Amino acid sequence: MLHAVIMAGGIGARFWPLSRRRKPKQLLDLLGEGTLLDQTLQRIAPLIPPERRWIVTNQEQMEMIRDSASAPEVSVILEPMGRNTAPAIGLAAVHLLRYDPDAVMLVLPADHRIQNNDAFRQCLQAAADLVADSDTLVTIGIEPTRPETGYGYIQIDRLAKPLAENIYRVKTFAEKPNLEVARRFFESGEFVWNSGIFVWRADVIMQQISDHLPQWYSGLQEIAVALGTPSEDAVTRRIFSALKGISIDYGVMEHATRVAVVRGTFQWSDVGSWDEVWRLVAQDENGNALRGNAQVVEGRNNLILAGDKLIAVVGMNDLIVVDSGDALLICPREGSQQVRALVDKLEKEGLDPYL
Amino acid sequence: MLHAVIMAGGIGARFWPLSRRRKPKQLLDLLGEGTLLDQTLQRIAPLIPPERRWIVTNQEQMEMIRDSASAPEVSVILEPMGRNTAPAIGLAAVHLLRYDPDAVMLVLPADHRIQNNDAFRQCLQAAADLVADSDTLVTIGIEPTRPETGYGYIQIDRLAKPLAENIYRVKTFAEKPNLEVARRFFESGEFVWNSGIFVWRADVIMQQISDHLPQWYSGLQEIAVALGTPSEDAVTRRIFSALKGISIDYGVMEHATRVAVVRGTFQWSDVGSWDEVWRLVAQDENGNALRGNAQVVEGRNNLILAGDKLIAVVGMNDLIVVDSGDALLICPREGSQQVRALVDKLEKEGLDPYL
Repeated sequence: MLHAVIMAGGIGARFWPLSRRRKPKQLLDLLGEGTLLDQTLQRIAPLIPPERRWIVTNQEQMEMIRDSASAPEVSVILEPMGRNTAPAIGLAAVHLLRYDPDAVMLVLPADHRIQNNDAFRQCLQAAADLVADSDTLVTIGIEPTRPETGYGYIQIDRLAKPLAENIYRVKTFAEKPNLEVARRFFESGEFVWNSGIFVWRADVIMQQISDHLPQWYSGLQEIAVALGTPSEDAVTRRIFSALKGISIDYGVMEHATRVAVVRGTFQWSDVGSWDEVWRLVAQDENGNALRGNAQVVEGRNNLILAGDKLIAVVGMNDLIVVDSGDALLICPREGSQQVRALVDKLEKEGLDPYL
Repeated sequence: MLHAVIMAGGIGARFWPLSRRRKPKQLLDLLGEGTLLDQTLQRIAPLIPPERRWIVTNQEQMEMIRDSASAPEVSVILEPMGRNTAPAIGLAAVHLLRYDPDAVMLVLPADHRIQNNDAFRQCLQAAADLVADSDTLVTIGIEPTRPETGYGYIQIDRLAKPLAENIYRVKTFAEKPNLEVARRFFESGEFVWNSGIFVWRADVIMQQISDHLPQWYSGLQEIAVALGTPSEDAVTRRIFSALKGISIDYGVMEHATRVAVVRGTFQWSDVGSWDEVWRLVAQDENGNALRGNAQVVEGRNNLILAGDKLIAVVGMNDLIVVDSGDALLICPREGSQQVRALVDKLEKEGLDPYL
């Protein structure tokens, strides 16, 4: 049966000062549409009943997730610590297989934004139908709309016969390219963005982990044996502590042979920075996106997320200003990736109330 | 006898959000040294006893001024409305002459910053000695340290014999120059900055107002007659309502024949913008001047006046950030003159709590 596995372990330090250890990106309403996690849950609701919705997260975030509007009814799988996507997915597979040996997993990051939800669900359903009795790993690709350098790319194998309507064999995975390469990818028509959304049978991904990440496979088998016993937590913690983190792309997808990609035409964003938030929200005729008590004089293309305090920007363009109540960030749009460096500094100085 | 007349009617909208109608520039501690008004009062204290210290201000500011640390003991002269410097000075002269027909006025803006207070007082005393039995108008000039375009200039008459040590006849007054002209002024050695600080006998300035601003002179005479009577306020209001504002420089100084200038060598600033505040306060090794709860990552030459809320600036240079509690300003250093445009906008939109 079809299960949704929502990956919600990330912190999203780039969204400081709104994102905090106990309130990471997926629990923020960055776009004024509800939290990203809620949006993710609502998006798959027509496809999957509550008892087959799973969230993989950590102890720190669990409470906040349980309190989240749509989340109380889902099952939570606890990672003892972040070890990147491959172990998180393996852990989820082990949990699912305990209840459903034929489980098909939809692996969904909790912090993406998707529009055209119907088209999105059709992609997932088509992929699920394909993998139901197949050992193929399916990844959801996004038709690129610009030569973006911030995403990984997937090359479609044009010579191979499509596996189903709009589902193709993968030729290669490509890391985030530089602009020149991104332009080539974009113009070729052979590349789609790697969304980090996957569809496969739980037993098939476990077999692939066994093939490509044997140490993790043994560890996950130990956890599988301990599930439901008093030692479950301790064993899980011991395995996660001992092994190195690795992404599912790098650890499995790039080595697997039977990999397919859906050519998704829905609007998608990983909402990766404040700059991207500016791009996604409504802007006025000067390109300013203002929320809360904000004023701009002689300024264009600014994102200002204000609260009650009046934030007045005079004579500035391309600025990010975010007021979280106890803290306020000011950075240039193109430098919004540097926010992480600030969070590192706060951590180094022991300014825990702001973390 | 020597009287200090402190001109404290200005609003200083360029210091929004700290400056407000009821808390103008002179009542702010912009430099972390005490309010500019307090500093002004303390600066002249060794020269003039409390009973001969006068503050010209308006109804809106009077209460705040009375509450100010050094101000309770001074006499307040109320302008019914701002009419620029000539009427304010004339009104003060009329008040002074009622008590002291031989009054010598030191006219001091309330919102300047001066260091080397001893040198400053020596200049004032020398000017006061000169005008005691003379009809000369003396203005205090400042030896320029750069080709500043934000100040007016005074040209010294090099051909005329000095009137006293360091006191020269004035050749011309020059308005704020462009950069090319400012450079010429600066390099010539003949020009000093016009500080707006004046020394003269009260009866002499009244005679000059009579010569050059006869309508104001008649009005001031009407006020003189009404002083101490029940109609004082009403007459003052009527005269100020009826006549146009004009500066003492434009209305009198540029036309008067017996004008002298002291070549002041003390450090002086009119503290005209947030940019100037940045220049005047202590900066760290990256040129950042931070007060309150502020953090800068990868940024130089920023002025951040924070309160309790953490203000974090990432990857930005030459920025002004000022948190007043209910409002926060962000503007570029070189654009800090534009702050007035913002205040106009707030006014237009009826956002009175922020004015």
